[in-house]
Amino acid sequence: MRMSEAGRTVRVGIIGLGCRGIDQMKTLLQMPDVEVVEVCDAFEDRVQAGIDIVFEEKKTRPDGTTRYQDIIEREDIEAVFVFSSWETHIEICVAAMKAGKKVASEVGGACSIDECWELVRTYEETGIDCMLLENCCYNREEMTLLRMVRMGLFGEVVHCDGGYRHDLRGEIGKGDINRHYRQRHFLHRNGELYPTHELGPIAKYLNINRGNRMVSLVSMASKASGMHTWFTENRSDSPLCDAQVNEGDIVTTLIKCANGETIRLVHDCTLPRPYSRGGEIHGTKGLWMEDKRSIYLEGVSEKPHRWESDEEYMKKYKHPLWEEYEQFGLRGGHGGMDYLVLRAFVESVQDNVKPPIDTYDSASWMAVTALSEMSIATGSSAVAFSDFTNGRWIAPREDENKGEYAL
Amino acid sequence: MRMSEAGRTVRVGIIGLGCRGIDQMKTLLQMPDVEVVEVCDAFEDRVQAGIDIVFEEKKTRPDGTTRYQDIIEREDIEAVFVFSSWETHIEICVAAMKAGKKVASEVGGACSIDECWELVRTYEETGIDCMLLENCCYNREEMTLLRMVRMGLFGEVVHCDGGYRHDLRGEIGKGDINRHYRQRHFLHRNGELYPTHELGPIAKYLNINRGNRMVSLVSMASKASGMHTWFTENRSDSPLCDAQVNEGDIVTTLIKCANGETIRLVHDCTLPRPYSRGGEIHGTKGLWMEDKRSIYLEGVSEKPHRWESDEEYMKKYKHPLWEEYEQFGLRGGHGGMDYLVLRAFVESVQDNVKPPIDTYDSASWMAVTALSEMSIATGSSAVAFSDFTNGRWIAPREDENKGEYAL
Repeated sequence: MRMSEAGRTVRVGIIGLGCRGIDQMKTLLQMPDVEVVEVCDAFEDRVQAGIDIVFEEKKTRPDGTTRYQDIIEREDIEAVFVFSSWETHIEICVAAMKAGKKVASEVGGACSIDECWELVRTYEETGIDCMLLENCCYNREEMTLLRMVRMGLFGEVVHCDGGYRHDLRGEIGKGDINRHYRQRHFLHRNGELYPTHELGPIAKYLNINRGNRMVSLVSMASKASGMHTWFTENRSDSPLCDAQVNEGDIVTTLIKCANGETIRLVHDCTLPRPYSRGGEIHGTKGLWMEDKRSIYLEGVSEKPHRWESDEEYMKKYKHPLWEEYEQFGLRGGHGGMDYLVLRAFVESVQDNVKPPIDTYDSASWMAVTALSEMSIATGSSAVAFSDFTNGRWIAPREDENKGEYAL
Repeated sequence: MRMSEAGRTVRVGIIGLGCRGIDQMKTLLQMPDVEVVEVCDAFEDRVQAGIDIVFEEKKTRPDGTTRYQDIIEREDIEAVFVFSSWETHIEICVAAMKAGKKVASEVGGACSIDECWELVRTYEETGIDCMLLENCCYNREEMTLLRMVRMGLFGEVVHCDGGYRHDLRGEIGKGDINRHYRQRHFLHRNGELYPTHELGPIAKYLNINRGNRMVSLVSMASKASGMHTWFTENRSDSPLCDAQVNEGDIVTTLIKCANGETIRLVHDCTLPRPYSRGGEIHGTKGLWMEDKRSIYLEGVSEKPHRWESDEEYMKKYKHPLWEEYEQFGLRGGHGGMDYLVLRAFVESVQDNVKPPIDTYDSASWMAVTALSEMSIATGSSAVAFSDFTNGRWIAPREDENKGEYAL
């Protein structure tokens, strides 16, 4: 990336101006080579707020609309960011790709396998990729670990753990269901609703869609007691207190890969707990554990079978992109990773190259949500992943950036 | 229990004199009210060694045999301890029960569901229980946690994690396959080979077979790379170097309970790592994590969403049995827990009451191994637990000790 050096100006549209959309747009507005031409949300007041934020930063007023079609139909917009509710991501991305726009989508899971195929078919018809903006792939620790995995420090990696372990009861329990995308998913669905923060980095460690792929999955959901307990104690006067919550408190998903590795994902958002992405990497030479911030590498760690802090390793193997980024100065949300993932997309547009997270990645990562629902609905049946690449995962990928900043 | 106060003398036979059998027998020899009458092993030299050890401690020579039938046929033996290889536990226990002996078995998993049923049928025909000697149920931390769960400190428990995460490559890789029970299982089987160290305590937290039961399970195995790497580096001159290892390095099992709780078990014995039983308890009021030795209890922990050390909790809620045991003085292996579980069995024989881990517990915990192999063999299919209690788990259990030392 060329952070401090601006590229050619990219004219973009922003679709979705909830809290997350506004945050991401603010980070984009810090880039001198990005011009926000039009903003969109289903709610008029959010459109106005979005326009005001752009004006405040750039001193020019973008257009605003409540119809996303207005944005994708514009000839003078080159790329579109989709920050709308989870269940509208793919629909809007597909429409944008068909209209010839490069597109980046905020993370979330798919509701069906067919919509993942629709995304893939649209890419294959248009040649335009949809990049899932999986910021955690660009987080400092995950990038360091990616480098350590590729250097072989863990030996042959055979298993990875990850989770989205985030107490969201207060957010899920908010009153206005119409404006709050998460709540309705927790009330009605039961599955791995939000897999990609942990799965994205793991997919990179395991070369998913690049000589490896996810082949099958099982999910199991615990009972759903957390929200009811919380509603009873915090919303006793609300109809939510008696609402049926379908989403199990702990949803565990096991994934088998073509090359024999296994992955465990945990969705854990309705119980009291400290935040964690529950990362673990297990290989024939050692292991790393996020919750303990510890590592053990056989023959490297000082004492046999004793954990040591990962702090020195995180310094020693820091990814060169982060070296450069720290000199440039961190910006944007979530410890700086939001900026990097947005920047990666912007530069792929400027250079007209494949984004580091491509349509096959986006489709296969998002598919986990739909597959996990299918597994749980059928008593934790094993369900197979579609091969969204139709066999292309086997051959070497010649179309990708292989530079030192590549994911 | 009445540790310092000896009860009536129990005359016992010991079957299985490998390392573990010898260790357990040495702990039993510390009890003044236990008399080892005869010892048995398939190997003559082990029988002699066993006799010598008893003589050294008690100054009387027990009888010795290579046929376990000799022990179970003796009129003057009241109880039998089975410390033989995993795959012979149930056969010997059943034979002992049919011969009217109280029986305790070292832990291990079952090879088939039918042998679990055989154990249950034998109990129902004879009225004699088989107690699985799950020492971890009596470990200090697990007993403290059992108390905390029962006090409601975690709220409603919805999920537990556990594992047998123990680098056993050196032990599995030993040369003499005939005398080493573990190796052949790792070479030939693929499943949750050793579930009970973690499952036993979890089953007690979740009241399994007492108002709750395990209803279904899925298992997934990673590829098996750890042993081959280890053999190559440490046994390059041995035929083992090219041996096919069937047991996946990381075998993950998810269990669903009748009351909606989920359990994750991990079998992780062929990769380099520090030892851990990977315990976690997740409830509507908080969680505990063994690997971090940390806890978070909402409204109790000082800072919201911040872990704190579990040290003070472990002191504050220490189980009264451990209070008494520490005054008495710890003895036996594995930090003292071996003595407690052996003592619990001996006293159940002396008092002619049900042991704290009964035949239904033994059968359902051991069944996990066979079920996990079935699941893996069929691509991580969901498999159902048999209800070994034939519905008795639903009704209150009137036949059990409910005292303060009860599990």
